[in-house]
Amino acid sequence: MILGIDPGSVTTGYGIITEDEGELRCVAYGVIESPPKTSIAKRLLKIGQGIQKLFQEHKLKAVVIEKTFLAKNVDSVTKLSYARGVCVYEAARAGIPIFEYSPTEVKMNVVGHGRAGKDQVQILVGQLLKISTAQITKFDMSDALALAIHHCRVEGTWEKLREREISL
Amino acid sequence: MILGIDPGSVTTGYGIITEDEGELRCVAYGVIESPPKTSIAKRLLKIGQGIQKLFQEHKLKAVVIEKTFLAKNVDSVTKLSYARGVCVYEAARAGIPIFEYSPTEVKMNVVGHGRAGKDQVQILVGQLLKISTAQITKFDMSDALALAIHHCRVEGTWEKLREREISL
Repeated sequence: MILGIDPGSVTTGYGIITEDEGELRCVAYGVIESPPKTSIAKRLLKIGQGIQKLFQEHKLKAVVIEKTFLAKNVDSVTKLSYARGVCVYEAARAGIPIFEYSPTEVKMNVVGHGRAGKDQVQILVGQLLKISTAQITKFDMSDALALAIHHCRVEGTWEKLREREISL
Repeated sequence: MILGIDPGSVTTGYGIITEDEGELRCVAYGVIESPPKTSIAKRLLKIGQGIQKLFQEHKLKAVVIEKTFLAKNVDSVTKLSYARGVCVYEAARAGIPIFEYSPTEVKMNVVGHGRAGKDQVQILVGQLLKISTAQITKFDMSDALALAIHHCRVEGTWEKLREREISL
């Protein structure tokens, strides 16, 4: 089982998929909500506890997160990195390999072009995993599922996968 | 006891001080080293484990970290924030209040002017805590001790301390 995580200091999306006889199947998806009016410390605690719960409930082979992109504002890149750091740290504590991909390569693989919008990612993820788009109520969910799908697809075909592992 | 932390993805400085009959006393200081050639995941694990150990060994009243400053390069701000995020997260898990100050206000308090160099911070911290400068082998140590000193000094005098707490 592969867990894709789209971390955020307010909403962290997650999606777990597995491969069943060559076909991708969605196991679980959702969001970990950290109310924006609480402190960054409390939000990180919520994210870490949510991630730990997913690790306990599912036997995961890999955790996949998005490679950091350039944010406009230092405060937002900091908070996002705090959240990402906690996800990477919890995966490291659990001994689960962590992989990282850029949003562009994920979109290229899942939608067919690297500059696809989040709504297109949502539609394609829904079609691939046979989930109605209406059930994917947040883009954080489809973004997380797309990361997991991308990893599953490259996993079998790509010899250089280890280069993407950030936990070696 | 107050723990100052100067997080870094390679070297994380720490310093613990206490107030003894109105006088500041150094309890412990050092660095948590994360070899630069290992993955970011392994480095975060090292930092988190080091912080946990300090929490177990000392009865801490507060954790003090430096407020994020603007770094030139996104990769370094990301890695630094990953490390900081892990420190804030571990303090939140342990239920210890976390406080944040800018480097300028810490230097202003400890050295007397906000643009003091790290060597000046090292000298003043050594004098204040009666540690020879030669024993403070890394600026990460004196920076961490300076954070703890600053917090101790404002703690008693400053009513608005809660505004600096980022774990409420």
